[in-house]
Amino acid sequence: MATDATTAEAYDRLVERIERISNVGNAAGVLRWDQEVIMPEAGTPARAKQLSTLSSIGHELLTDEETGELLASLESVELDPERAAVVREVRRKYDRETSVPGELVEKLSEATTNAHPVWRRAREDDDFEAFAPTLEELVELKREYAAHVDPDADPYAVLFADYEPYLELETAEAVLGELRDALVELIDAVADSDAELATDAFAGEFDADAQEALCRDALDALGYDWDRGRLDTAPHPFSSGTQFDARVTTRFDESDPLGSLTSTIHEFGHANYTLGLPDDAYGTPLGQARDLTVHESQSRLWENHVGRSRAFWEFFLPTVRERFPDLAELTAREAYEAANQVYDDNLIRVEADELTYHLHIVIRFEIERELIAGDLEVSAVPHVWNEKYEEYLGVRPETDTEGCLQDIHWSHGSFGYFPTYSLGSVLAAQLYAAAEDDLGELDGRIREGKFDDLNRWLRENVHAHGQRYTTPELVERATGEAFTADPFLEYVEGKYGELYGLET
Amino acid sequence: MATDATTAEAYDRLVERIERISNVGNAAGVLRWDQEVIMPEAGTPARAKQLSTLSSIGHELLTDEETGELLASLESVELDPERAAVVREVRRKYDRETSVPGELVEKLSEATTNAHPVWRRAREDDDFEAFAPTLEELVELKREYAAHVDPDADPYAVLFADYEPYLELETAEAVLGELRDALVELIDAVADSDAELATDAFAGEFDADAQEALCRDALDALGYDWDRGRLDTAPHPFSSGTQFDARVTTRFDESDPLGSLTSTIHEFGHANYTLGLPDDAYGTPLGQARDLTVHESQSRLWENHVGRSRAFWEFFLPTVRERFPDLAELTAREAYEAANQVYDDNLIRVEADELTYHLHIVIRFEIERELIAGDLEVSAVPHVWNEKYEEYLGVRPETDTEGCLQDIHWSHGSFGYFPTYSLGSVLAAQLYAAAEDDLGELDGRIREGKFDDLNRWLRENVHAHGQRYTTPELVERATGEAFTADPFLEYVEGKYGELYGLET
Repeated sequence: MATDATTAEAYDRLVERIERISNVGNAAGVLRWDQEVIMPEAGTPARAKQLSTLSSIGHELLTDEETGELLASLESVELDPERAAVVREVRRKYDRETSVPGELVEKLSEATTNAHPVWRRAREDDDFEAFAPTLEELVELKREYAAHVDPDADPYAVLFADYEPYLELETAEAVLGELRDALVELIDAVADSDAELATDAFAGEFDADAQEALCRDALDALGYDWDRGRLDTAPHPFSSGTQFDARVTTRFDESDPLGSLTSTIHEFGHANYTLGLPDDAYGTPLGQARDLTVHESQSRLWENHVGRSRAFWEFFLPTVRERFPDLAELTAREAYEAANQVYDDNLIRVEADELTYHLHIVIRFEIERELIAGDLEVSAVPHVWNEKYEEYLGVRPETDTEGCLQDIHWSHGSFGYFPTYSLGSVLAAQLYAAAEDDLGELDGRIREGKFDDLNRWLRENVHAHGQRYTTPELVERATGEAFTADPFLEYVEGKYGELYGLET
Repeated sequence: MATDATTAEAYDRLVERIERISNVGNAAGVLRWDQEVIMPEAGTPARAKQLSTLSSIGHELLTDEETGELLASLESVELDPERAAVVREVRRKYDRETSVPGELVEKLSEATTNAHPVWRRAREDDDFEAFAPTLEELVELKREYAAHVDPDADPYAVLFADYEPYLELETAEAVLGELRDALVELIDAVADSDAELATDAFAGEFDADAQEALCRDALDALGYDWDRGRLDTAPHPFSSGTQFDARVTTRFDESDPLGSLTSTIHEFGHANYTLGLPDDAYGTPLGQARDLTVHESQSRLWENHVGRSRAFWEFFLPTVRERFPDLAELTAREAYEAANQVYDDNLIRVEADELTYHLHIVIRFEIERELIAGDLEVSAVPHVWNEKYEEYLGVRPETDTEGCLQDIHWSHGSFGYFPTYSLGSVLAAQLYAAAEDDLGELDGRIREGKFDDLNRWLRENVHAHGQRYTTPELVERATGEAFTADPFLEYVEGKYGELYGLET
C-alpha cells in the first residue's frame, strides 16, 4: 500500500480541491433554501446570477486539469479503501463533467430555464401541444448528453446513473416490473374489498399553527436534532443542508393535517440521513450521502414503516388529541386506517398512497424510457399515458393537466430520476426488515416512542458510511443480501391484506 | 474616446470578471445573513468553511493576472466617465488586494477569528489584560498591512481608506475635532439645563409581537418595498443584500419600544439605499453602494432627521397608540422628548443619544489613531480611555467592560472604521439640508406621512449613482458644497436648544 510523500500530497491536494467544490455547492444549497423558503419575490434575477456563478465555479474547479492529473496519479498506486472510495467518487463526477462540452451544458441550462414557465403554463391551460416542442428539445439534448458521457451505452442508463450511479438499470427495471405486476393485482383486490376504512377520521378544519406544533412534536419524538436543524414552510416540501445543518420544510393544508405530518416525517428521514454523515468527513465523499435511492430509502422508511405504522399511531395519538381537542374520540385504529387509505381512483402522484404511488412511477418510467430510446414520439405521450393509467390503475385522466403534465421533472430535463422514488421505497423495506432481524421486532419500541435503536442501526449501517461503498455494497453490508423487492412486497401484502381483509 | 473592438472587449471581460466576484460576494452575504438570523447553532463549523472558500475564491478572481492586464489596457485609453469610474473602483480594490501578501491575509484572518472569543471573555470578565496581547498582535498586523498597501502613507490613513476611500483623513479629523469641541459644550449646557423632558413616556412593558407589528407599520409608512425585503430579528441589528433583495433586522427589548423602532428605521435607511441602486448595474461598481460614510448617512438621515423629528411623532403617534393602547394619553411632544433625551451619564455607545454618541466615537478614534501610529502602548488604553470619558463626557467608567472593552470592532481588526459613524451623521445633516433647499421644508410632508419627495431626492442625488462618483464628488453634486459639519452643528444646536431651553 503506497503511503509515500507524493501520494499523500496528491491525495491532500485532491481533498482540498473537492472540499472547495463542496463548500461552493453547499453555499449554493443555502441560497436555494433561502430562495424556496424566505427570499422576497423580486430577488429572483440576482439570485439566479449568484447560483449560476457558483455552479460554473464548481464546474471549473472539478474539471480543471489538475483534478485529472491528481486522479491519474492516485489511480496508479494502491490506496487504502477509504481513499480509494474518494478517488472513485471524484473520478466518476470528473469523467461525467469533462465528457460533456461546455456548449451543451449551457444549452441544457438555457433550455431547462426556459422550459419551466412553458411547462407551468401548459399545465395551467391543459395544453400539451404547447409543451411538446420544448419536451422534444429536452429529450434531444439529453440524448446528446448521454452520447457524450458514453456513446456505447443505453442512453437512458446513462441518465439514470446521474441519480443512481451504482444500481444497474436492468436491476431497477426488473424491480419496477415486479412492483407493477404485484401492485396491480393487490390494488385490484383492495378495490374489490368490502372493508370500510375510517377514511373520514380527519375530516374538518385544522388550524395551520396547531399543525405546525404537531409537526414539531413529531420531530421531537423522532429525535430530530434542533441544534442542527429547522422546520419551515415551503410550497414544495424538501430537505437540504449538511451534517452540521440539515433543515426540513413542510406545508399546511387546513383540511388535511395528515399531509403536513407525513411530509414532515418524510423530510425528517432525509435530514436525519444527512445529520448522520460523519462530521470529520465534511466536504468529501465520505461525508456525503450516497445517491437518490439510498436517500429516498431513508425518507420512506420513516414516513411509511414508522410514521404510517399502527404502533406509531398508538404512540402519537395522545399528542394529536392534545393539539386537536376535536379529535378526542379518534382511536389509534381509525387514525391508522385513515393514514393508509388506498386511493384507487387518484390520478395525482403526490397525493397517492403507498400502493398506487409506484404505478405512477412505473408509468412515467416506462414512457421516458421509450422517449429517450427514440421509440416513442413526444406527440404520442398523452395517449400512451392515459392508456397506461387505464390499464394499471383502472382510471383515465380527462385532462393532461391531471395526466402527463402533472410533474415538474421533465421540464428540468430530469429523465431517469423517477425510478429512484420506487427504488428508495423498496430499499426502505429491505433495510427495515434487516434492522428487525438485528434488533428484534420494532413495533413495541415505536409504541413507546423509542426510536433510538432504529436510529442507531441506521447510523451504523447506512449514514456513517457516506459514499464509502457503492449502493449494492452498502445494501449487501447492511442487509446481508442483494437489493431485492421481496421485503417490500411482503410488507405491503401483509399490511394491506390486514387493512382490507384480503385473502393472503 | 476609444471605442474600438479591443477596448470594448477588454471592458466586457473586466465587467464579466467583477460580476462573478460580486455574485460570489453576494452569495457570502446571504450566508452571513442566514448565520446571523436563522442558522441553527451547530452550523457554525461548516458555515465558516463555506465563507472562507467563497472569500478566497473572490480574492483569487480579483487578484488574477488577467484583472491586472485588463485594467492596464483600459487605463491606456480614454473611456467614457461611467466606464472610467468602473475601472477606477476595480483598480483601487485590485491594488489593495495584490499589495498584501497572502500569508499576511491568512495571519490576519486567523488572528481575528481567534480574537473574537478572547475579547468576548475579557469583556465578560472585565479583564483587559487578557485581551491586551491579542490587541497588540492585531495592531501590529494591521500596521504591517498598511505598510504593504502604501509604505509612504500614514498607516492609519491607509486603514481608514478601507472603510472610506475618498474622504481625506485630514478632513475627517478636522470634522471630528469640530464635533468634539461643539458637542462637549452643548452637552454641558444640556446637563446644566433645568428643562424636564418626558423621559418616562415609554415606561412599562411592551409585548415583542406588538413591537414587531409597530416596526412593520413604520416600514410600511416609510415606503419599504416588501417585494424586495424582509424584517427579521438578530442579536445585533444589521441590513444586507442587493438592490433586488435588501433585508432589515431589528431586536426587541420589552422595556424599550423605542429601541426596536429606532434600529428598524436606521436599518431601513441602509436597505433603502441598497434598493435605490440601479438594477441594470447589478454586480458592477455602478450598482454598488458608495462606502461607509455615505451608507451611514442614509441610515442616520432616516433614523434622526426623520424618525426622531417632532413631525414624525405627530404623524406616527396614532399608530403607536393603536399597537399600545396603554399609551392612550401620550402626546406627540412627550414622545418626541423621550426619543431625544440626552443621556449625559451614559457610558455605552450603542445606548447613546444623538449628541453624546459622537464623543464615544471621537474617543475611540483618538485612541486607535495613536495606537496605530505607535504613540500609545496597548497597556495604557484603559487609563487613556477613562481620562477622555472624564474630560469629554464628565463620566468615568468603573470597569473596562463598560469602558474600552465595550465594542467588538477591534477584535475584528477594524481600526479606522469608527470615524465613519460620525462622518455619516454629519453627511446626513448636510444631505437633509440640501434636500430641504431643493424641496422646501419637509416637516409638513413628514407630518402627513408623505416621504416620497425626500426618497425621490435621495434616489436621484445619492442612490442612483452607485460608485459613479467619489464621496467628495457625490457630496458636491448633491449639496453644492464640500463635505462640511456646519449643517450638522446647526441641526443639533437648533433641536437641542429648543428641547432643553438653551440660549442660542
